[in-house]
Amino acid sequence: MKTRLLRTISQVREYTFGIRQRGLKVGCVPTMGALHAGHGSLIDHARAESDAVVVTIFVNPIQFDRKDDYERYAKGLESDLTFCELRDVDAVFTPSVEEMYPEPIATFVDSLDLSNYLCGASRPGHFRGVATVVAKLFNIVQPDAAFFGEKDAQQLAVIQQMARDLNFPIRIVAVPTVRESDGLALSSRNQRLTPEERLNAPAIYQALTEGRRMIENGEWQAEQVKTTLLNRLAGQPAFRVEYVDIVDPKTMQPVDSISGDVRIAAAVWVGSTRLIDNVLCRAS
Amino acid sequence: MKTRLLRTISQVREYTFGIRQRGLKVGCVPTMGALHAGHGSLIDHARAESDAVVVTIFVNPIQFDRKDDYERYAKGLESDLTFCELRDVDAVFTPSVEEMYPEPIATFVDSLDLSNYLCGASRPGHFRGVATVVAKLFNIVQPDAAFFGEKDAQQLAVIQQMARDLNFPIRIVAVPTVRESDGLALSSRNQRLTPEERLNAPAIYQALTEGRRMIENGEWQAEQVKTTLLNRLAGQPAFRVEYVDIVDPKTMQPVDSISGDVRIAAAVWVGSTRLIDNVLCRAS
Repeated sequence: MKTRLLRTISQVREYTFGIRQRGLKVGCVPTMGALHAGHGSLIDHARAESDAVVVTIFVNPIQFDRKDDYERYAKGLESDLTFCELRDVDAVFTPSVEEMYPEPIATFVDSLDLSNYLCGASRPGHFRGVATVVAKLFNIVQPDAAFFGEKDAQQLAVIQQMARDLNFPIRIVAVPTVRESDGLALSSRNQRLTPEERLNAPAIYQALTEGRRMIENGEWQAEQVKTTLLNRLAGQPAFRVEYVDIVDPKTMQPVDSISGDVRIAAAVWVGSTRLIDNVLCRAS
Repeated sequence: MKTRLLRTISQVREYTFGIRQRGLKVGCVPTMGALHAGHGSLIDHARAESDAVVVTIFVNPIQFDRKDDYERYAKGLESDLTFCELRDVDAVFTPSVEEMYPEPIATFVDSLDLSNYLCGASRPGHFRGVATVVAKLFNIVQPDAAFFGEKDAQQLAVIQQMARDLNFPIRIVAVPTVRESDGLALSSRNQRLTPEERLNAPAIYQALTEGRRMIENGEWQAEQVKTTLLNRLAGQPAFRVEYVDIVDPKTMQPVDSISGDVRIAAAVWVGSTRLIDNVLCRAS
C-alpha cells in the first residue's frame, strides 16, 4: 500500500475527517522518527485495532532540555517512509517545526506530580514538552486510539493521566517493550553506542530482571532491591547510573514498601548515551 | 423547543456524536449558570452560526481562589433551564463536580504569560483553572465553535491562545459585552450589589469610556490615561480599585505607549463585590 505523506495540519484534518465521516476508526502512533521494531510493534497494534493508521514523525524541540541531544536525534525520513509502507501505514504526518510552532508557544500542558521524579528530575521541562506536543497531535489527528510504548513508562503515565484529566476522547493503548535477543530494549539511541558499549548495554535489563525476581520472591523493601541493582550496575565501568527506582506504575511516585504492581525503572548513561528501561512486576 | 438536560459526559458525547455524524455543526456556550442577557447574546450568536447549541453550566471549583466566592456563586438550575428553552438551546450539560473531577486532577493547562497580570495577579491559579476546565469541556462536547464574552477579556485571550497553541479544532468566537442602559456590564455578580452600589457601579464604564476618548483624541501615554481613570474612580467612596491598565488585546501585556488596538481593563471592588470591565480602543 502506498503511504500518504502529509506535511500540513490542514492536510491531516482533511484526511482524518473523511475517515471519521465514513464511520471508520483512526489509530495514531506518535513518534520522533528513526523507526525501529519497537515502533513496528506500535504500528502492528494500531493496524489490528484501527481502520486507518496515522504515524506522526516530529522531533519536538520543546521536549529537549539539551540542544545537542535535539540536534543528534536521528532524522532519516526516506527509510522511515519505507518502514511505514512495508507495515501498511495509511498516512505519515511529518510537519515542519514552523507548522507546529508558527509562533512561540505560550500554553503548556503539565502534570507536575508525575513529571518531577525519575527522568523529570534530570530533564526539566521534558514531560511538559511531551504532554504539550501530544495534546497538539491529538487535536490535529483526532484519532480514536493512540499507541505508546511501555519502554517510556513515565511518558506513558503522563499521557494516560493527561487523557483522563482533560477528557480526551481517545483510548490510550500501552504496548509492551520490544527487546533485542540479548534483552536490550529497542531505542533510537542504541545506534549511538560503540560496539563495546552495545555489548555491555544488556546488563541494564539483566539488573532489572534480577530486581523483578527479588520482588516476585517476596522482597518488599524497595531499598533492598535498589541496592542490589546499583551494585550490579556498578560492575560495569562504562555505566553511570542516573537513577534506579521502584515506583507506582500509575503515579510514578517512588514506593518504600512493595505491594501489588510496581515498576522498576532505571536510567543509565552508557558512555555518552543515556538509556532508559523498566520492568513491571507484581509483588508475590 | 424542549431543551435536553445532560448530566454525564457519556450522554453529551453520544448526543454530539450523533449531530456530527449527520454533518451538522455544534456550537458551545460554556457558562457557570446564573444566566443573564450577556449569556443570552452568546447563545444568540451560537444559534445563528450552529445547527445545535449546547450550553454548559458548571461552577468550576478549580478556578476559584476564594472558597467564599465559590460558595456564593449563584446556582439556580431551574431558571437557567427556562432561560435556555426560551432561547432554543438544544442541550444543557450540567455535570456534578464528581463527574468532572472523579479523582483529584493532576494535569493542568496553563498560559503563564497571559495569566500573571491583571486578574491573574490577584487571583492565583484562576486562569489555569479556567483553561483546564475549558480544555475538558472542549474534549467532552467537541464543538465546532465556542462562544465567549469580551467582558472577560483576559479569559477570552487565554482561551484564544490555548486554542491556537494546542490546535483545538474549534473556532473561538468573541461576543461583545452586553450592558445595562446605564452602561454597567452585565455580570452574575451584579445581583450582589446593594441598591446604592448598583446606582454607583456604572461609574466604572464611564471612566473606561473617558479613557477611550482620550486615546481616540491622541493621548499615547498609558500613564496619563491611567492617572485620569484612577482620579475619576477615586471620586466614588465605595470603590476600591484593584487595577486599571492599558494592555495589548492579544497578549494582555501592559503597554507604555499606545498605538494600534489596545484594551483598557479595570477591576474594581464595589463594597464586597468585585466587578471587571474593559473597552477596546483604537489609537488615532
